[in-house]
Amino acid sequence: MEFTVKQIAGLLGGEIEGNGELKINQLAKIEEGKSGTISFLSNLKYEAYLYTTEASAVIVDKHFEARKKVNTTLIRVENSYTAFTQLLQQYEQIIKGTKQGIEQPSHLGEGTTTGEGLYLGAFAYVGNNGKIGKNVKIFPQAFVGDNVCIGDNTVIHSGVKIYNNTVIGKNCTFFANAVIGSDGFGFAPQPDGSYKTIPQLGNVIIEDSVSIGAGTTIDCATMGSTIIREGVKLDNLVQVGHNVEIGKHTVIAAQAGIAGSTKIGEKCVIGGQAGFNGHITVPNGTKVGGQAGITKTWEQEGLSLNGTPAIEFKDSLRSAAIFRKLPQLEKRVNELEKKIKDDKQ
Amino acid sequence: MEFTVKQIAGLLGGEIEGNGELKINQLAKIEEGKSGTISFLSNLKYEAYLYTTEASAVIVDKHFEARKKVNTTLIRVENSYTAFTQLLQQYEQIIKGTKQGIEQPSHLGEGTTTGEGLYLGAFAYVGNNGKIGKNVKIFPQAFVGDNVCIGDNTVIHSGVKIYNNTVIGKNCTFFANAVIGSDGFGFAPQPDGSYKTIPQLGNVIIEDSVSIGAGTTIDCATMGSTIIREGVKLDNLVQVGHNVEIGKHTVIAAQAGIAGSTKIGEKCVIGGQAGFNGHITVPNGTKVGGQAGITKTWEQEGLSLNGTPAIEFKDSLRSAAIFRKLPQLEKRVNELEKKIKDDKQ
Amino acid sequence: MEFTVKQIAGLLGGEIEGNGELKINQLAKIEEGKSGTISFLSNLKYEAYLYTTEASAVIVDKHFEARKKVNTTLIRVENSYTAFTQLLQQYEQIIKGTKQGIEQPSHLGEGTTTGEGLYLGAFAYVGNNGKIGKNVKIFPQAFVGDNVCIGDNTVIHSGVKIYNNTVIGKNCTFFANAVIGSDGFGFAPQPDGSYKTIPQLGNVIIEDSVSIGAGTTIDCATMGSTIIREGVKLDNLVQVGHNVEIGKHTVIAAQAGIAGSTKIGEKCVIGGQAGFNGHITVPNGTKVGGQAGITKTWEQEGLSLNGTPAIEFKDSLRSAAIFRKLPQLEKRVNELEKKIKDDKQ
Repeated sequence: MEFTVKQIAGLLGGEIEGNGELKINQLAKIEEGKSGTISFLSNLKYEAYLYTTEASAVIVDKHFEARKKVNTTLIRVENSYTAFTQLLQQYEQIIKGTKQGIEQPSHLGEGTTTGEGLYLGAFAYVGNNGKIGKNVKIFPQAFVGDNVCIGDNTVIHSGVKIYNNTVIGKNCTFFANAVIGSDGFGFAPQPDGSYKTIPQLGNVIIEDSVSIGAGTTIDCATMGSTIIREGVKLDNLVQVGHNVEIGKHTVIAAQAGIAGSTKIGEKCVIGGQAGFNGHITVPNGTKVGGQAGITKTWEQEGLSLNGTPAIEFKDSLRSAAIFRKLPQLEKRVNELEKKIKDDKQ
Repeated sequence: MEFTVKQIAGLLGGEIEGNGELKINQLAKIEEGKSGTISFLSNLKYEAYLYTTEASAVIVDKHFEARKKVNTTLIRVENSYTAFTQLLQQYEQIIKGTKQGIEQPSHLGEGTTTGEGLYLGAFAYVGNNGKIGKNVKIFPQAFVGDNVCIGDNTVIHSGVKIYNNTVIGKNCTFFANAVIGSDGFGFAPQPDGSYKTIPQLGNVIIEDSVSIGAGTTIDCATMGSTIIREGVKLDNLVQVGHNVEIGKHTVIAAQAGIAGSTKIGEKCVIGGQAGFNGHITVPNGTKVGGQAGITKTWEQEGLSLNGTPAIEFKDSLRSAAIFRKLPQLEKRVNELEKKIKDDKQ
Repeated sequence: MEFTVKQIAGLLGGEIEGNGELKINQLAKIEEGKSGTISFLSNLKYEAYLYTTEASAVIVDKHFEARKKVNTTLIRVENSYTAFTQLLQQYEQIIKGTKQGIEQPSHLGEGTTTGEGLYLGAFAYVGNNGKIGKNVKIFPQAFVGDNVCIGDNTVIHSGVKIYNNTVIGKNCTFFANAVIGSDGFGFAPQPDGSYKTIPQLGNVIIEDSVSIGAGTTIDCATMGSTIIREGVKLDNLVQVGHNVEIGKHTVIAAQAGIAGSTKIGEKCVIGGQAGFNGHITVPNGTKVGGQAGITKTWEQEGLSLNGTPAIEFKDSLRSAAIFRKLPQLEKRVNELEKKIKDDKQ
């Protein structure tokens, strides 16, 4: 995991300005650069750091002109941001590795087909009659039930539990201990105050390029499917109830929760710990603040919502500002009442 | 998993009106019916869907009279709702299956007794000196510690972790990755600002017919027991602190949290993401809104509480309505002050 | 697990007053004492219970003078609280046990060194090139990735997942199904509204004497490290985002969440379900109420914060008190307006 500046410049097709023999073993932000790290300068807002950074090398744009003396080694490339991203990805492959093969003991059920490039970690369990695509990685202690389809290049980390009949697209990632397809929370109240379990017979469908965070739970539908559309990103410890549908390219931060049968639109951005009532609809492009509580269906696209019960963001800020001054406001009303009373006497 | 309408009608003791040879492979709500599905009509509120549904067959009451032309095949039965529920349960058995037997490798500790009908999945671990009832199902990668008692027909899904000395009743279900009996959060502050761990020596007792959601965590008591009474239903990612007691037939939605030593009454209905302070009491029949924060003991049974700090539900709605108008309210007070000042001059 | 009062008195170096032959099999609080339990009286606030307790024996201070008739057996010791704590710890060792040895099947990767006293439970997986200290306990179905360092006496419970390159100190405890080092939630928005994953290349560093609750998730840094300092205690289902740093001896209750790059100071006390925006700083000694939402950086140390957006605790209580009366306040403003209007006419 150690390279010379010259090797990295060669990889990126860049030109060296300074010492090409320096050893690089980590990547860093320019403001956090230390000896042995390489960084980059793309946004000129950070230019000042270039002159003070301790990074051994910094990637800059080909035509960048320094206004002061530079003490670090530069690598000039066509586009410094793109080059650094390329480096990040190569580095990722090195440190995260590419697992392949079947470790033992593991369990691969009858009638389940697998594609080339499979990694099945030790103590992983895959049920019967499933269909596993190419380059799928199933880490140790993951569980995949019966009749599960998993698309190419999908990665299932350690401890993830995927129930029977789940359908998963390509290029998805499931982080450790996520649970997909557990029963929806459905109980019919009985006359004596007890509850009877309503059978949960549907499944979960997860389309391509979805990312599911650690410990996140997605319930199966009562009937039909709970659906997570293409490109959705869920953070850790998110709860998705039965029959929910989340539209394409919506991102949801940690610990948010969505009650049953609610439909979240496309390209929404949902803050952490936000909550959604069941059976409501959230339009495309809605932004929801952290800890907000969405209690009803909203019609207009692209709104920013905040607070519980949620209102428009700017209104919530205005009301919150006065909330802080409520004791003074009450006092002012007290005084007004006193004055009016005095005037009358 | 494919049956003809005739087979299903035979199973339900119903009469066919239409094509008995149609193939059925799924159940659906009448408004979501597609070719190959069977649905039902019980509540006449949904009658309109009968005339437009694409479901291949619909179960109706024996004496139901259609007011328009019906294009789908009908199965007439004594009670359409009961018949459909019967079908749901049969379908559930088919798609969820009934696992039995001991898969290898798995670990069954010394001195642990098991009843007939056991399923012990691969990579499941059961500790020593436990007592496992009849028809208990322990799925792959579940962990059951030492001295654990589990009643008949209880199902422990993949990745559930049950600590030593836990006592579990009959007919319970634990969904994937739930954790039962981890240490309570008890630390004694030391003079230097650090904390010393207080040994957590109690256990968790879970009575009959309890359902515990995926990723839910229940801590053991410091001394004595954390107790989940008969028929309680906990959704996913719920947190139950040490020495908590939850009364019979209380249901708690996802991501709610109960701090240590709090007692929740019977037949309460708790919304998602609600939070409870420690050492308080919540009376029987209390309803708590989503995201509410219950900060103190309430005395009266059957109240609806909402907001943080929680107040009665209708009061919280009224106050929230004015919260939204706080900027106007402040403006009105400004104007009143101005008018009074003007009057005085 | 059954001892006589005489045996316990011998262990504690105490003097018996009453029946030394009674059998003890559990510890209890004095107000919950039952036959067969031993309790203690230290804080005289609880003295009344001494005269009514059903505990078989009670540990008291050497010079304690009873004001009424005592029916239980007393054990007199130098310091009753210290003696009881000693008993608790001995009892803990007995009921929680001290596991040792390597159960099979388990996986210990190449190049990983281990110290004496190791427990590696069945179905546990430890990756390559790691370094495991002395007396480390890794319970069944835990996962430890590659290049992970774990200090002496650290305990990793069942189902915990620790990603590659994590560094863990001495005397730490990880409760079941905690996840350490999953990817940070970093996605770069693309012109078409989709997101591209930003490689997460950093790690997690956990210092000595840290406790991590069941189901808690800690993300790795994008670059650099997410850092949990010495003595930090995290409860269950807490979320810690990428590049967060939590200062020494800070305690965080269940279901709290901290967004990326936020720095929490030392000796803070954070309530359950509290949320923190990303990229903010919380000073040393800050106290945060349950469900509070910390939206900005605070400068002053030792403040108590509450509410969303959080304000100082006493202000939040005052404002909340008036929030409850908002309908009346609005009514009073209505009446004032009416009076002023009447006066003018």
